[in-house]
Parts: sequence; structure tokens; C-alpha cells
Amino acid sequence: MKKPDTSHSALGEVDNSSQKHLSQSSAERIKALRRKKVDLKKLSEDLRSGNSTALSRAITLIESQNNKHQAQVKQLIEACLPHAGDAIRIGITGVPGVGKSTFIESLGLHLINKGHKVAVLAVDPSSSVSNGSILGDKTRMEKLVQSSNAFIRPTASGTSLGGVARKTRESIILCEAAGYDIILIETVGVGQSETAVHSMTDFFLLLKLAGAGDELQGIKRGIIEMADAIVINKADGQNLDAAKRAKVEFNRALHMYPPKDNHWTPKVLLTSALKKKGIDKTWQLISKFIAHVKANHHFELNRLAQNKYWLHQSIEDQLKREFYANPTIKKALESELKKIEAKQTTAFEAANDLLKYYKTKLD
Amino acid sequence: MKKPDTSHSALGEVDNSSQKHLSQSSAERIKALRRKKVDLKKLSEDLRSGNSTALSRAITLIESQNNKHQAQVKQLIEACLPHAGDAIRIGITGVPGVGKSTFIESLGLHLINKGHKVAVLAVDPSSSVSNGSILGDKTRMEKLVQSSNAFIRPTASGTSLGGVARKTRESIILCEAAGYDIILIETVGVGQSETAVHSMTDFFLLLKLAGAGDELQGIKRGIIEMADAIVINKADGQNLDAAKRAKVEFNRALHMYPPKDNHWTPKVLLTSALKKKGIDKTWQLISKFIAHVKANHHFELNRLAQNKYWLHQSIEDQLKREFYANPTIKKALESELKKIEAKQTTAFEAANDLLKYYKTKLD
Repeated sequence: MKKPDTSHSALGEVDNSSQKHLSQSSAERIKALRRKKVDLKKLSEDLRSGNSTALSRAITLIESQNNKHQAQVKQLIEACLPHAGDAIRIGITGVPGVGKSTFIESLGLHLINKGHKVAVLAVDPSSSVSNGSILGDKTRMEKLVQSSNAFIRPTASGTSLGGVARKTRESIILCEAAGYDIILIETVGVGQSETAVHSMTDFFLLLKLAGAGDELQGIKRGIIEMADAIVINKADGQNLDAAKRAKVEFNRALHMYPPKDNHWTPKVLLTSALKKKGIDKTWQLISKFIAHVKANHHFELNRLAQNKYWLHQSIEDQLKREFYANPTIKKALESELKKIEAKQTTAFEAANDLLKYYKTKLD
Repeated sequence: MKKPDTSHSALGEVDNSSQKHLSQSSAERIKALRRKKVDLKKLSEDLRSGNSTALSRAITLIESQNNKHQAQVKQLIEACLPHAGDAIRIGITGVPGVGKSTFIESLGLHLINKGHKVAVLAVDPSSSVSNGSILGDKTRMEKLVQSSNAFIRPTASGTSLGGVARKTRESIILCEAAGYDIILIETVGVGQSETAVHSMTDFFLLLKLAGAGDELQGIKRGIIEMADAIVINKADGQNLDAAKRAKVEFNRALHMYPPKDNHWTPKVLLTSALKKKGIDKTWQLISKFIAHVKANHHFELNRLAQNKYWLHQSIEDQLKREFYANPTIKKALESELKKIEAKQTTAFEAANDLLKYYKTKLD
């Protein structure tokens, strides 16, 4: 695959100081929050009335590790839940350089012109509190950020995907309660983040570039299978012919996979987000998909399956985390692994012994 | 994909009664075992001396659910472990009709002619105790079964993959201690069985048939990625041209995947197991692979990773099983799911509540 040429990026840099809330990192926001007393009732009302500052403060509460804040988050979520769930949640992935920010800006502005309210979130556990690699800088979407009908929030802070995913799922609820009816969730093609975003969205879109042939080389396992659409971006100028060839190749690749439960056949589209070409077609396709899955009830079935997935995932994560985090178990695990290597025990026997030990010593 | 034409199968049926140990199902063997007193020391010695009847009885012990037998298994495994691990473990998968039995018989006989001792095991959790769908009938390998240097054992009994996998991993240890230096492990292309077999073998071989074009259609997710070689069987007579075309198409598909950690590039081969064509080349390829991964230490690294995988897998399976099997938790889980659907709680909050409940009520 051709290395993405980031010098082609059309994303202008603007002076941060001219943007509200931009230069404050999550950490600083959380510190500021601690100094103030949170009036939960007012925050909840303001949020529900569509006040984006209230929404922003509420999401900052979600990101706080402070126990008092976490108790407040619980109340806030419970108040928002009955008013959430009606938005269309769209996951967008693609490697750096593919033009995700430009694409999201173009799609976001297109949707706002059509009367929608658009929230943009991100999932990127690799991004630290102070230095997000995606959406860390809202100046990448300078036109969208100026719209009163857009809400843009960089990735939740945290290093564990489970934690970031949880915060993002909770942020979706708040955004929906605040009246945003389209949620765009960006992720980068790293590890399990795409699976997490796929498991919290209704439609999953893979952004690609046309390279010098060999389009499929280096595509990560499972990503194509998750995609409801592959959008080949930067299909303009000299890239257009290569993009058309890539479309043929991706269509062939999609053909390889077994049909999906929801009877949707993934489509390949060409766009030039920079020149705003193909954005309308992309939205038409998403709308067609939503109509399709609402008609055959896979929209609700998918949401239900996602809730079950996150319930089981959270339970199992926590069971495992508690087991492996235990210092006594940590030592015992090391010594059992050495015994396995020395052919003194099997993996199964070692597991039994560890669990017996866990139960008797630690309860 | 063309439906495999099982009428082309060359597997002759022979009179069961003329074969030793064939008509006895696992259940009957276990019953017989209960009536006899097991002399563990003698069983272990006989097994180590290469006595196949002792090996067979020892594997029957593994399959028994009887607690006393399980304690004996533990001793037996511990005695065998220091003498295990030196064999080459080969996983073989493919849909019914692809000619797995004929292929395994041809490969097995080829290896025995070269001076090896070959054990053939299977992993098929869908197969019941009395009616195994693969390797249930050793008459499918009538020549191999007659060799004193071959040991063939149908799939372990059990309906959970974890259980069957554990029994198979333990059977491998016993076979290796009994002097079998090549272990062939057969599985069918069903669910997670292939992942399990891939995680207990050094080399993973996917058997395919050439169809009427469209070779890749319907291939299960991840199977191609696991394969160290794709062998297109029944590449003879009128099938030969189609097989050659399939080889091109599979090579193109393999090209799509990122390089493996062990720096091995999977190969595509043509065989006619029935006419014993390509079997020598298959073995040459496997030998080349083993030399390659032994030279770059990925052979040991892979075995070590497999041990870790099964250790963690067993721990996590057991943690989950105990949690979900608890009747109180079962009820609470149902009610939490209903609360999620009614938008009264989130999946994360529900998980927290369930785990708190689990810890306080049940310890």
C-alpha cells in the first residue's frame, strides 16, 4: 500500500486562541470542575435544553476519576437515558492521512444543511489526556466547529480501551439527550478500537485511499468484514482512475465474505471530501441502510445485541481484571508458567490450581 | 462454491467386526474401565514402552468424568509430561467431502514408510459419544489402522469445545510419551474448533476442493489467515485444470494478508490423496516450515504462546462459567437486561451491579 501522503492534507491550522474550549486539555477541565460545585439538576436541565457548554461539562464529569463525580455521572446518565437512543450512530475508521477529519467535516456540514444536529466523538485509547492523535485539535474541522448545530469532542481520556469505550458510550447518551440526532464516532485503525466502535454504532464506514494497486495489502483482519460501506476518499484529479480501479478491487473483496445477518450488502463509494464530491451519495447510502435495517428490525436487534455485548464484556473484563490484578495471583501465575515450561504441569492443571488458590486464599 | 460431491469419495466401508476396538464407543469403554481396577504404574510403563492398548486405555481415562479417574489422569499426565513435546503437531481442517480421511491416510502411510510413528486425533465437539462425525469410524483409514506404527483415536467425547480441547491436548501428551513423533489432528470447519486446533498445533493445513470458480466464496472468517498451507485435494483427472486455477486464486487471496510473525509465507499445493500424488511435496513443505521456525525460534515461541493461551483461556472460561452458572446471577442478569431495554440502566452500570451482588451475596 502506498504510504499516505499527509502533505496532501488540506486541513488548515488556525490560531487556537480564537476557538472556545480548545486549548484546555481534559486534565485541565477536570481540575477546573473540581474547584466548582456541580449543580446536577441545573446541568441536566441545561444539557437537555441543548446547551453545548453544559454537555461539554457533563462529558468532563464522565472523564473524571473522582468518586464523587462518578456518583454524579450515574445520576446524570439515568436522567438522560429515557431521552437517548433515537440518533443514528455512525462509526468512521481509516488510517491517518486518509482524510477522516475533512470527510467528517464535509459530511457533518452536509447533515447540518439538511437540518440535523451532529455530534462528533472519537475512540482512541492510545491518545493521552494532553495529546490526542485524532480529534485532539478541533481546528482540523474549522468550519464544522463554528456551527451551533455541531458538537465536537476529542477522544475520551484513558489508556484502557474498555474505559475509553465506556466513556464514549456514556457520551453518546448525553449527546442524544442534548438533541443531537446524528452521532459520528471516529476511530483509527489500531487494535481493538474498531471493534469497540463497530459495537456501539448502527453503521460502520471504512475510509480508504486508492494506492498504486495492491489495494487490499495490509488491510487489518476483520475490518472489511465489519464495514457496511467502503468509501474511497481523495477520488479526484489524478487519483480518480486509481480510485475507480480500487472500487472494482474492493467490490471483489467484499464478494468474498458470507452474507450478513441483516441482509445488507456492503457498498463501495468514491468521494472527494475536500471537493465535497460523493458526500450526498454517502448520506443517501447510509439513509438507505437505516431504512433497510429498520424495516427488517435489525436496527433494534443490533442495538439489543450491542447492549448484551457490552454487559457481558464489562462483566468479563471486571472478573478478569480483579483476578489478574491480585498481587498474590500475579506471583502464582508466574510460577505456574515456569512449571509449564519445565513440563511439570499442564496449562489446564495450572489454571485449576490458580483458581482454587484464588477462591480459598482471597475470599 | 460447488457442493462437495461425496459420491466421489473413495473411502471403502469394511466390516467393523474385523477391526480391533472399533465397535466400542467411548461410553462403553469408560464403563468397562470402571469395572476394572486401574494399575496406574503399569499403565504408565506400558504406555511409555509404546503399547497402543495402554495408550488407548489411558485416553479413555482422560475422557471419563469419574473423579477417581480424573485424579489418576493427573498422575498419568505428570508422569508423561517430561517425555512429551518432541513430536511435530499438524492440524488439518476442511469441509466434509474434501477427502480429509483419505489425505490423512495417505500422509500417515507416507510418514510411516519414512520411519515415523503417527498418531491421529480429532477435535469435533458436535460429535456425540456414540456417533462421531469425523474419525468416528476408523474403517475410513483401513490401511493406516492396520499399521503398528499408527494410532488412530476418534474425537474426544463432550459437547463443550473447551472440554474437548483439553482432552485432546492431554491426549497429545500421552501419544508423545508413547513415542509417536508426528501427531495429526483433524477438525471440521465448524465454529471455534479450528481456532482450538490451530492453538495446539505447530503447522495448520487447510484442505480445499477446486470448485466451479468462485473459490473464496463461503470460506470462513479467519481460516485462511490461520493456514500455513492450503492443499487443494482431488487435483486429478477432470479436476486438474480447475485445481490449477484455484491455486492461482488462493495464492492471490493469501497475498492479501499481512506477513506472519514467524516470517512464513503460506503456500498452496495440489494433491490427489487418492492417487497419492503431492503427498511427498506436502511433507517436504511441512519439513521446510518446521526447519524455518526452529531456526528462527518461532517453534518454541509458538509452543510457549500456546501454553499461555490455554492457561489464560482455562482461567477465564472457569471464571465466566462459575459466574453465569450461578442461579441467582442468572435471574439477576435477566432482570438487568430488561432494565437496559427499558432504558433504566446502562450495560456498564448493570455489570457493576451484578458483580457487586455476586461478591456480597455469594461469597
